[in-house]
Amino acid sequence: MCIGLLGLGRIGRAVADAAPALGIECRSALVREPRKHLTSSLTLETDGLRVIDSGIDVLVEVLGGTEPARSLVIGALDRGIPVVTANKSLMAAHGPELREVAARAGVPLLYEAAVLAGVPFVGALAGRPVMASATRIDGILNGTSHFITSAIERGATFGEALADANARGFAEPDSRADTSSRDAAEKLTILLHLCGAGHVTAADICRRGIETLTPADFAAARRLGGSIKPVACASLEPGRCGSWAGPAFIAAGHPFAHFSGVTNALELRSATGEPILFAGPGAGPAVTAATILDDVHTCSNGSNGSAGSWGSWGSVRSTGSVRGAVVRGARFDVSAARFDQPPASRWFLRIVTEQISDAHLAEFLAARNVAAARIERGADDIAVLTVPASWAVAQSAARTLEQLGAFVTALPVVGREVPR
Amino acid sequence: MCIGLLGLGRIGRAVADAAPALGIECRSALVREPRKHLTSSLTLETDGLRVIDSGIDVLVEVLGGTEPARSLVIGALDRGIPVVTANKSLMAAHGPELREVAARAGVPLLYEAAVLAGVPFVGALAGRPVMASATRIDGILNGTSHFITSAIERGATFGEALADANARGFAEPDSRADTSSRDAAEKLTILLHLCGAGHVTAADICRRGIETLTPADFAAARRLGGSIKPVACASLEPGRCGSWAGPAFIAAGHPFAHFSGVTNALELRSATGEPILFAGPGAGPAVTAATILDDVHTCSNGSNGSAGSWGSWGSVRSTGSVRGAVVRGARFDVSAARFDQPPASRWFLRIVTEQISDAHLAEFLAARNVAAARIERGADDIAVLTVPASWAVAQSAARTLEQLGAFVTALPVVGREVPR
Repeated sequence: MCIGLLGLGRIGRAVADAAPALGIECRSALVREPRKHLTSSLTLETDGLRVIDSGIDVLVEVLGGTEPARSLVIGALDRGIPVVTANKSLMAAHGPELREVAARAGVPLLYEAAVLAGVPFVGALAGRPVMASATRIDGILNGTSHFITSAIERGATFGEALADANARGFAEPDSRADTSSRDAAEKLTILLHLCGAGHVTAADICRRGIETLTPADFAAARRLGGSIKPVACASLEPGRCGSWAGPAFIAAGHPFAHFSGVTNALELRSATGEPILFAGPGAGPAVTAATILDDVHTCSNGSNGSAGSWGSWGSVRSTGSVRGAVVRGARFDVSAARFDQPPASRWFLRIVTEQISDAHLAEFLAARNVAAARIERGADDIAVLTVPASWAVAQSAARTLEQLGAFVTALPVVGREVPR
Repeated sequence: MCIGLLGLGRIGRAVADAAPALGIECRSALVREPRKHLTSSLTLETDGLRVIDSGIDVLVEVLGGTEPARSLVIGALDRGIPVVTANKSLMAAHGPELREVAARAGVPLLYEAAVLAGVPFVGALAGRPVMASATRIDGILNGTSHFITSAIERGATFGEALADANARGFAEPDSRADTSSRDAAEKLTILLHLCGAGHVTAADICRRGIETLTPADFAAARRLGGSIKPVACASLEPGRCGSWAGPAFIAAGHPFAHFSGVTNALELRSATGEPILFAGPGAGPAVTAATILDDVHTCSNGSNGSAGSWGSWGSVRSTGSVRGAVVRGARFDVSAARFDQPPASRWFLRIVTEQISDAHLAEFLAARNVAAARIERGADDIAVLTVPASWAVAQSAARTLEQLGAFVTALPVVGREVPR
């Protein structure tokens, strides 16, 4: 069993280090600058095709980004070489195309490490029609932003928390993909593809960064019995489709409330409403390498590996199969739905104002169809939890308050639990 | 796509009801008494071989128990017919044999619904060597006993809680398999098989029922910042192998502390120590049928389905593969290890005594190598959390206390979190 590596960064090196113990030979690696890897015992190449054509059984792609990753992955699949990738940007941008190429070639394309890197569930979601008929996805899909929000909750500023994440090696030197929620939006896109919405792109996901969060936001959430976490979520219910990647209010009773640090988590709900939870490490070279090597083993085993397995259901559904719609509990085809607004939800509002009394605020919100279910006044601000309302309605109310001189933070509420 | 059913109880009927929406024809069913199923539109058989030989693509076994399930499953596999089963008693007692038969025949044998019925992870554990190299398994694997202990925690007696579980349809008329922890021990056995310990039987699992738990036990646990849950756990570390199915102390910081009702959960730790958590519905006809039908789809898809996939790694490991040992982070082969004692752990002790002072108790426990890390005296009892100690050491101390006239409850502590 012999693999070739595209990329020899932290994850690539971890794969090369762990492979021998599993009886896997790591033959060659594509690198940009060979002189940076003088101590490596691998054959270093600057032309990816030379790695692909070096007689390998499986190609492992850990370059990141979309090109040249996309072209090289297609090159390998076209030659009948199975591909394992951990590259979420690639799968979010070109997953449907690459799965088609793999299916046409009859070759496995596995990417278990692209989402919740340490927790195997992508294969199950891809291969199990009932499982993939989730009507609601909620995830903490980015560990760096989770670490940072957890630190802000304990009183740090965003800058202090980011510096700490950098010092611990959690954040990349350029952490904007993490803090802007772009990374989480890409992972959510991959999940939506697997659930039949193959037309969604990462740009469709309504997205907001965590940079503007302050300890005061968390204090307001705490007064309402909850917390704030960086969440990627989507609704796949008929007439209620939508997506969001950014901070969200989490009630204390929700499982996410008990996770902190870099932990990743994913909750899937189906039409019957009983949630399924996956949680564990979402990143890190050793964790990611372990999942990649399990994927390599799966390829070699012929199991889970036919492109049919990881591609078929998603593609059946995304071409409008009635079967998918029936599974979802209604004749509803998500492949035609729009996901470019946040789903309707309760809303968490933190309002800083000197002019408005609680009674006036309640009256104001009720008149704008986003009535307050609970109001908790603090020393410097008002924390509100609203009844369920659409994004447009909640935004409109927030904008009007701002025109009246208030400062407003408005975040969606995740989970059905009504805070005490 | 056409399936035959062995068994037409609650789960079998749920499979038959849900199958048509997935394009799956349910052709015939083995039943014991056809006159009990007069309204069924299926062809009813009292001879299982007639179901197997009726031209089906996949056999679904939901009879429960070991015979005739075992013989009929072997009969189907020998004829080249894939089998999907939700039968944990069968897989615990005969899993290794059946996986061998399936591998020899080159036919899929899938049993995702046998453990954590609503959460797909068995396929991943079976097919992914690094994933299956867990060094520690902790699970809430039986929903009925979890419901009952949650009710006792709120003040109910065992009898009241059981009656409530029966009334809600959670408990079978004969609930002894649930309350004696036999069901959980069977599921843990299946997990141990998948982790390479194919020699373990359910009888090897050290087991204790939940019938004797009282609200006073939970009150004592609460004073120590924790709770009591029905847990099945195993250690697969060199020199520390062991297993337990029964009540255990859960610190408030552990993820299990936040689950209640019938929820099932599984935490796997590897040598690197970062835990992976799966949680969701563990039983119920609709949930189990959904997972069974996903397995049926997987069989038909040819993916995940080669017997190689679900059997190979476990069997490679259970025959003493060095590879499994290396993955586990030490040259350690669990296929030769004994699991018939609970793993070493901290211990929760609830002691009812009139003779012994706190100081004397601390001195007594320290002298017996199971020193108290924390002592909390209540009105009627003493709650103790000890330092880590072996089962034998903790039992010996408890027995000696009982000889001195005390009443002692001794439970293992699950999780690394040290209660505050």
